[in-house]
Amino acid sequence: MDVRVNLQRLQSNLEELGRIGRDPRGGVSRPSFSKADLEARAWLKKKIEAAGLAFRLDGAGNIFGQLGGGGPLVMAGSHIDTVLNGGRYDGAVGVLAALEAVQRISEEGGRPSKPLAVAAFTDEEGNLVGDFLGSRAFMGALDRELLEKGTTAFGIPLAEVLKNTDFTIAGILGAHADAPPVEVFLELHIEQGPTLDDEGVPIGIVDSISGKHYRWCSFVGEAGHAGTVPLELRRDAFLGLADFALRATQHVATHHYGSFVTVGKVHVAPGVFSIVPGRADFSFEFRSRSAGTLAALEHELFALAEDIAQTRGLGFSSRLMDKTEPVVISPLLTNLLAAEADSLGYPHLALPSGAGHDAQILAAKTPAAMIFIPSPDGVSHAPEESVRWNDLEKGANLLLAAMIKLAG
Amino acid sequence: MDVRVNLQRLQSNLEELGRIGRDPRGGVSRPSFSKADLEARAWLKKKIEAAGLAFRLDGAGNIFGQLGGGGPLVMAGSHIDTVLNGGRYDGAVGVLAALEAVQRISEEGGRPSKPLAVAAFTDEEGNLVGDFLGSRAFMGALDRELLEKGTTAFGIPLAEVLKNTDFTIAGILGAHADAPPVEVFLELHIEQGPTLDDEGVPIGIVDSISGKHYRWCSFVGEAGHAGTVPLELRRDAFLGLADFALRATQHVATHHYGSFVTVGKVHVAPGVFSIVPGRADFSFEFRSRSAGTLAALEHELFALAEDIAQTRGLGFSSRLMDKTEPVVISPLLTNLLAAEADSLGYPHLALPSGAGHDAQILAAKTPAAMIFIPSPDGVSHAPEESVRWNDLEKGANLLLAAMIKLAG
Repeated sequence: MDVRVNLQRLQSNLEELGRIGRDPRGGVSRPSFSKADLEARAWLKKKIEAAGLAFRLDGAGNIFGQLGGGGPLVMAGSHIDTVLNGGRYDGAVGVLAALEAVQRISEEGGRPSKPLAVAAFTDEEGNLVGDFLGSRAFMGALDRELLEKGTTAFGIPLAEVLKNTDFTIAGILGAHADAPPVEVFLELHIEQGPTLDDEGVPIGIVDSISGKHYRWCSFVGEAGHAGTVPLELRRDAFLGLADFALRATQHVATHHYGSFVTVGKVHVAPGVFSIVPGRADFSFEFRSRSAGTLAALEHELFALAEDIAQTRGLGFSSRLMDKTEPVVISPLLTNLLAAEADSLGYPHLALPSGAGHDAQILAAKTPAAMIFIPSPDGVSHAPEESVRWNDLEKGANLLLAAMIKLAG
Repeated sequence: MDVRVNLQRLQSNLEELGRIGRDPRGGVSRPSFSKADLEARAWLKKKIEAAGLAFRLDGAGNIFGQLGGGGPLVMAGSHIDTVLNGGRYDGAVGVLAALEAVQRISEEGGRPSKPLAVAAFTDEEGNLVGDFLGSRAFMGALDRELLEKGTTAFGIPLAEVLKNTDFTIAGILGAHADAPPVEVFLELHIEQGPTLDDEGVPIGIVDSISGKHYRWCSFVGEAGHAGTVPLELRRDAFLGLADFALRATQHVATHHYGSFVTVGKVHVAPGVFSIVPGRADFSFEFRSRSAGTLAALEHELFALAEDIAQTRGLGFSSRLMDKTEPVVISPLLTNLLAAEADSLGYPHLALPSGAGHDAQILAAKTPAAMIFIPSPDGVSHAPEESVRWNDLEKGANLLLAAMIKLAG
């Protein structure tokens, strides 16, 4: 079966979806269960039905479109939620290319021996209570306490957010019980980094996905008047954070090349011009492709924090917010993708994924693989996020070819 | 004339005033023109009238109580506004000790040859549009544009805040025209630093007041995904700030011992766990007793910021928010205070003021001096701010004796 995607239709679908949840700052704001997300869900449902697929919604709000039945699914997809003022392609590309692939197979009268499915997982971006709510619910990997006690990135309990929707915490926790078996999961995604764009290669075949630790940390010192407490007597919590951020970055860059460390969110208290900061709260995350490195980093970085705290007369504390394990993609799948890309005449290279993806959650129990297409200038999670249409076409054609191969 | 203050009355006045504007976090929140401040003003008016002094309010909301008339005033005072969740003594001590001193002179039937006055200046703490609004208005040292365009620390235009009061921008700007001539100004204040407490000395005679520069600064880099942009390719604006804060502190501590530098307020954008900060905005202030050092610091610290920006591929910009010049107190006044303290048998030492004070604003055109009493543990601008009553008694007695001496 020699089929190609309809790029014009895929492009027009991406543009339609990209208009839902436009942010006045230039990007898209479509966190799961927001008004914009509910609108996007209704839009996707119509598209799935118009493609002739069987629509299914689970208790976690995960959306599926299925072609054929009986036996484990050959599934492809991603997510349609976005970070605040994010881009139009992160997630959307994977869902709509999967829809396009299955729709083309259906249009060509293909009767694959295994059922095909498109999936759009809820809240991949973690605007609610941690990343991957939908795929975790699907896999039965959710913690009831997190759902019941966790507050969202907007400071509201999850139960409050759900009041505006047809979903419930019980429904989310129950999604796994109804989940069909999955034979294999494929996810097409933008790279969100500069490698493919720098190398001028249209296709990346992901060989591993980083694991990460998210922590919320604090240095606590003593507030004081900025014109009277001598520099040498200060216990300035912000300087503790500054020291830690610089030295942690230096440590990872020097000793764990290829791993990542980021302080992304900072809150200094009391946060007044003329008062020495008594407290600095901050997000701290580190990522690595290697489970061993991740464990070493946890040990080394927190020893560094304790050391800085002691030297500067500060207290240090931290709380684990989220943790995902690194995933190595099966060579059976990366080889299959490489062979299909070769048949299509598409240059490709193997690369790791630093970002987490729904595929990583499914990979815990299901063979899963990822195809990347270039992010021009490496930009993502920003209004300027983009794709080149000819790269998208190649990525979607490779997804289509792999699904046909896997479905037999 | 050998008079002493009535400590019990002074103490009870401080306690009454300290109950106005109690903050649920434990301190006092009484920013100028807030509901609590308006209540405190009404309370002070009653106290001034009950003491038999002539009450006067100027267009900037500065409150005066006068004993006698004709010729330039021998004035003492401070302010009754506070920072948010501040202490009960910063400012209040200076106003109520001055009231106590003038009241005692009046009660003893003293007929000083020069008129005496108590003053409470509006918004010394700069919760509105910069420090020293009231004393600056009194001295005619205000900028019309600042009042008309400046927004308050709470993000509201000054004109909006004034709507709840009897005051207007025109009235504030006009206060200087009605201001009586001042022969000399004295201010009793808590030290807000640890020196007197550490030395075990009850009286500080201020020999200089630091000047300061307040700036609002930004490093601008590029936001990016925390799991995909390699450490060596990042233009992390927060790491630029971290580097600058540490090196600026190190520079001042090493090369300008006794001067101060503080980053008190920090805002990192987009401020998300998994995004490399593209922008870091922060307050930056530095203080010195020496005008020469202040000028050198301005040059050196901004060269450092530019250097860090260049090395890290960031942009740097800064905006001057406020600037006060250092003041050297006249030896005529410090000698007079030292002699009176000796007569009273109070140990004293000369020390600089790192914090700014209304006396600094008046000192531009009027002889002005300051008396400090110890801040236990150096704590100020915090609910735990305190005074020892026997220190307060000594400070108030010295203020009283100096006023008698200066009024003849």
